[in-house]
Amino acid sequence: MSSRTNPDPNPNKPSVVLKDLTIDNITENVHRINSQTPDPRLRYVMERLVAHLHDFARETRLSTDEWMKGIEFLTEVGKKCTDVRQEFILLSDTLGLSLLVDSLTHPTPPNSTEGTVLGPFHTHTAPTTSLGESISNDSSGNPLLVLCTVRSTNGTPLQDVKIDVWETDSKGAYDVQYEDGRAADGRGVLRSDEEGKFWFKAIVPVPYQIPDDGPVGRMLGVLGRHAWRPSHVHFLFEKKGFETLITALYLRDDPYETSDAVFGVKESLIVSLEDADEQTREKYGVEEGCKVLKYDFVLVSEEETKKLRDEEARKAMERMGREGMMIINGLPVPDVD
Amino acid sequence: MSSRTNPDPNPNKPSVVLKDLTIDNITENVHRINSQTPDPRLRYVMERLVAHLHDFARETRLSTDEWMKGIEFLTEVGKKCTDVRQEFILLSDTLGLSLLVDSLTHPTPPNSTEGTVLGPFHTHTAPTTSLGESISNDSSGNPLLVLCTVRSTNGTPLQDVKIDVWETDSKGAYDVQYEDGRAADGRGVLRSDEEGKFWFKAIVPVPYQIPDDGPVGRMLGVLGRHAWRPSHVHFLFEKKGFETLITALYLRDDPYETSDAVFGVKESLIVSLEDADEQTREKYGVEEGCKVLKYDFVLVSEEETKKLRDEEARKAMERMGREGMMIINGLPVPDVD
Repeated sequence: MSSRTNPDPNPNKPSVVLKDLTIDNITENVHRINSQTPDPRLRYVMERLVAHLHDFARETRLSTDEWMKGIEFLTEVGKKCTDVRQEFILLSDTLGLSLLVDSLTHPTPPNSTEGTVLGPFHTHTAPTTSLGESISNDSSGNPLLVLCTVRSTNGTPLQDVKIDVWETDSKGAYDVQYEDGRAADGRGVLRSDEEGKFWFKAIVPVPYQIPDDGPVGRMLGVLGRHAWRPSHVHFLFEKKGFETLITALYLRDDPYETSDAVFGVKESLIVSLEDADEQTREKYGVEEGCKVLKYDFVLVSEEETKKLRDEEARKAMERMGREGMMIINGLPVPDVD
Repeated sequence: MSSRTNPDPNPNKPSVVLKDLTIDNITENVHRINSQTPDPRLRYVMERLVAHLHDFARETRLSTDEWMKGIEFLTEVGKKCTDVRQEFILLSDTLGLSLLVDSLTHPTPPNSTEGTVLGPFHTHTAPTTSLGESISNDSSGNPLLVLCTVRSTNGTPLQDVKIDVWETDSKGAYDVQYEDGRAADGRGVLRSDEEGKFWFKAIVPVPYQIPDDGPVGRMLGVLGRHAWRPSHVHFLFEKKGFETLITALYLRDDPYETSDAVFGVKESLIVSLEDADEQTREKYGVEEGCKVLKYDFVLVSEEETKKLRDEEARKAMERMGREGMMIINGLPVPDVD
């Protein structure tokens, strides 16, 4: 669709002439005026954005009334956003776009841990948590002991990985959703030990509804969809030289295991909880009845991820039959002469 | 892309199973969960919306960082909206989507007046204006006399057509952009006489910049685009039995004639102003030096427009190879069994 791949049939006319635009020629003309940007990546992103927006309108024969409803909806989504509520992220999540973008950005080879959606509830207020400490002050929750390891793809334990963990309280609310300005709860930042191990106390996660009192909740209602997410604990791993891993672990047999409102569940991230046996109870100082979540995470090197991302981007350009593109940091960019 | 045109390869599995979603299968799965809506038109619109959103991400390999910038941009656009400022309409206008949607909704046969973008400055506060009255109180503007007719496609003069007209002041600002809460100015509502004629006094329109102090203005800057619209006067025609005509007349040789920031100019809507001759000056009570704008508008019957819209929608479905669609009020809707 670019002037590069579809050369202008009349190269003698001025480069930007926007007159007599019709249903058929408007897209090419918007591409042409947007091509004035000196940023080739932006030029490509805008070209694809405009092409798909216009094709969407043409294929649906989108009416003025429908589009005004769309404008009003988007305006409401924007108005609903606050410092602690990001309704556009919710919209992106519920349309599957967040998971898709995450998957494109963080490709994972088969021998590593899969990523999933970050969601809107990660913060930078989590307290530093020593190994073995509890991240939850919610005494109504069912006690959970989380015992994990983190390694590289060749099996080497990774020490001093920074691990952000966060979960809801026993009622299904994240701390940032409290209206009384309480301190951070249900979250912590840990560091793995020399054997790549990290462990902490928490509560058994519960299903919860994404905030559905806004326009996105209304959209879900009109679509006949529920707003529930299956029980899960979020994990975010950072270590120099390794690709940041944003993931979560889900509880097996959760009622929403196969209908997550934000499309985050993957089979490889579903875990079955165990009961803490006597030895574990003594070793970690937990009571009888405490559940145990075990998982071995595998991080991928930045180098390997970059190679994979470049390969996938190159394949995508081939599938599109798109020529004259370079791949820079995994992103297709027109090869400017 | 629908389950209708691409039957589910494994029809025995439950209808909604959202697990292990990948870059390749997520779109079909989002379609499936959204198909729960009982509204077939919404189902089709959402299917096309999600397909294009996802293809946009796949084709650009949209990164998490880029999409976060997109989320922040959309949030700002929403926050910028007020009762008198609709930044999402500006965004739609500057991406050519508004013109496209208008063209789809209001197809015009060759023997009628073309439509163009409504823009965000139409209001319902315009005063009723008698034929010959002035719509402008701006004494700094160059006087203009507007002499028009309005007819049907078979040439019959149309009486009592409701005609909304609006334009900027001599500085390029619409009344709603004034911050001092002044009364409506530069707009009026007229009615055509028994010969289909209507005339009013105004000022010669000037080019103006669309509001560029918000995120859309910043976008235009990054794209190397200007924010100017060529000089024009807006017209909106309403008459029972006829399709509402939203259009505007542009001045020939305006510096922005071929680079309108919102893609509204059409050759058939460009007019050359004349000087008011003595006879005209006497007849309409205007001074020497007054300019005259003449135009003959042609409205299309609702019936003819509906037929055209249905035909165009049917052709679009054929081009897409999309089967099993009905056209209801010009809009494609899946033919539910």
